[in-house]
Amino acid sequence: MKTIKIGLLGLGNIGTGSYKTLEMNKDQIKATSNVDLRITKILERDVNKERNITVTPEQFTQEPNDIFQDPEIQIVIELRGGIEPATSFMLEAMKNGKSVVTANKAAVAANFETLTNTAKKNNVEFRFEASVGGGIPILNALTTVLRANKYEEILGILNGTTNYIMTQMTEFGLEYDDVLKIAQEKGFAEADPTADVEGIDVANKLSILMALTFGNYVPPTEIPTIGISGISKEDIARAKNNNCKIKLIAQAKKVGDKIEYSVKPMELPNNHPLASVSNEFNAIFVKGNAVDELMFYGKGAGPLPTGSAVMGDVLEIAKSL
Amino acid sequence: MKTIKIGLLGLGNIGTGSYKTLEMNKDQIKATSNVDLRITKILERDVNKERNITVTPEQFTQEPNDIFQDPEIQIVIELRGGIEPATSFMLEAMKNGKSVVTANKAAVAANFETLTNTAKKNNVEFRFEASVGGGIPILNALTTVLRANKYEEILGILNGTTNYIMTQMTEFGLEYDDVLKIAQEKGFAEADPTADVEGIDVANKLSILMALTFGNYVPPTEIPTIGISGISKEDIARAKNNNCKIKLIAQAKKVGDKIEYSVKPMELPNNHPLASVSNEFNAIFVKGNAVDELMFYGKGAGPLPTGSAVMGDVLEIAKSL
Repeated sequence: MKTIKIGLLGLGNIGTGSYKTLEMNKDQIKATSNVDLRITKILERDVNKERNITVTPEQFTQEPNDIFQDPEIQIVIELRGGIEPATSFMLEAMKNGKSVVTANKAAVAANFETLTNTAKKNNVEFRFEASVGGGIPILNALTTVLRANKYEEILGILNGTTNYIMTQMTEFGLEYDDVLKIAQEKGFAEADPTADVEGIDVANKLSILMALTFGNYVPPTEIPTIGISGISKEDIARAKNNNCKIKLIAQAKKVGDKIEYSVKPMELPNNHPLASVSNEFNAIFVKGNAVDELMFYGKGAGPLPTGSAVMGDVLEIAKSL
Repeated sequence: MKTIKIGLLGLGNIGTGSYKTLEMNKDQIKATSNVDLRITKILERDVNKERNITVTPEQFTQEPNDIFQDPEIQIVIELRGGIEPATSFMLEAMKNGKSVVTANKAAVAANFETLTNTAKKNNVEFRFEASVGGGIPILNALTTVLRANKYEEILGILNGTTNYIMTQMTEFGLEYDDVLKIAQEKGFAEADPTADVEGIDVANKLSILMALTFGNYVPPTEIPTIGISGISKEDIARAKNNNCKIKLIAQAKKVGDKIEYSVKPMELPNNHPLASVSNEFNAIFVKGNAVDELMFYGKGAGPLPTGSAVMGDVLEIAKSL
């Protein structure tokens, strides 16, 4: 059995969920993958928080270089979020010969080319399954077993907060502002919901999807993006009358030799596979020239679903170490 | 760029679809995977059939050993179907050091342990993504990036013929026999529909899914199996009144330390993710202890969707050759 030592940057919600995923399934992972994964160092300021995981004070460090320069650590997991210093941390880890796993869509989308090129140059792996669709294993599918296809179209519901708001407005005929308030009270929306409701988070994810499927990296800031804050209950009622639902949709589509792309609210017919994706669930619809229509559905956020994707990436890297 | 030579057993519908997938996407495959895949020999009696693919008489052979003993061939694709001689052919290919890809659920389910053990012993790969869910990349997901989960439940709509019949009975209030006749006329059901409508095909697929997820191989003949031939239009109407749909469901579920499993028609509430899977589409619902609920949806049959899965497996093998 291989032992692989891992450095973890950030022990917030997602960091804790990833740690927990490993902790609760360690035996299963050993049995099926023949690898003993050990998170030996954690960069995190808040050492004393109650997290309901088994972590010792010796694992914590306040010094990033303790991780980057530890010759025993082979994989670095970045789960702090935000573009910086996360991007610099990931690049530094790669330059020190460590493979990197992240859930950080903002950093991956903003610096896609620098990050993937630096990984290549340093002959390490860079994986970010959790950055799009949370626990849904979409990126791995698109970049491995579906590679014999030419992709024609991608449509995604990629943000749980906005899908929750759209679903509640549709089911109960409520106004946007009222549902947003409920979502904030329930913890489904942040105090400052801008990145979610204005589509910025979704544009990050679409940028990543396009780079992987069409080989066409477009910075998220250059993707035409309209959020849901302008949707009224009258808009929803009108869609309902047309047997449609309004969803915030990330779309990229091959039209001739060009790729057309946008993030915007769209009316989907009720019988479209994405129309029945409700509340916090995410889904990605893909059309390939051989496989035809596919849809992947699941939890797009949350500590454990995200932890599933993070640890799945770690296991894929572990195969070749 | 690596050149990899492939032997193909069978050039019927699925064989032709796989050949066509490679032919129409060869440039894309070269560009993204840096590999030149060449099907150099084909075991097939019917040399003259019009197939709408570019194949030369020199590629055909009537002698299986021409393929098994060709030192240049590294991968053998088995697409003849049926348990024998397909199983013997696959074992012979493995013993000659060739990795094997197949879409043959009957052979994989009947001889799962012999086939996987023989592959291990000969240090070759054995992949069968297309055997469950056609083009849906479910087996790869379950055995790679979802491996950090303990699986709790699998529910699948795994047969397009029976799902078409159930959908048409539900939508038009028709009797089973009448819909079966229409399905046969349209080519959606075979002249002898037994393997489909009695659930035998689905039991093969469930056997494969259980072996991969729960590590628990159960021969398909030992899976309690009830087909759809006993479903009346009254049953469907009753389900409709309960806001349910009847679907032929493959189920495997962890209950304590045991796995409970069956193939049978089940009433699913209309808001269940599988309830809206209509006609020839397949879908697999998976619950893992970290990722929670996932669903994978797509075309479970057809030459090109199956070809997508077959060539995806070939590309995965090519990585390590």
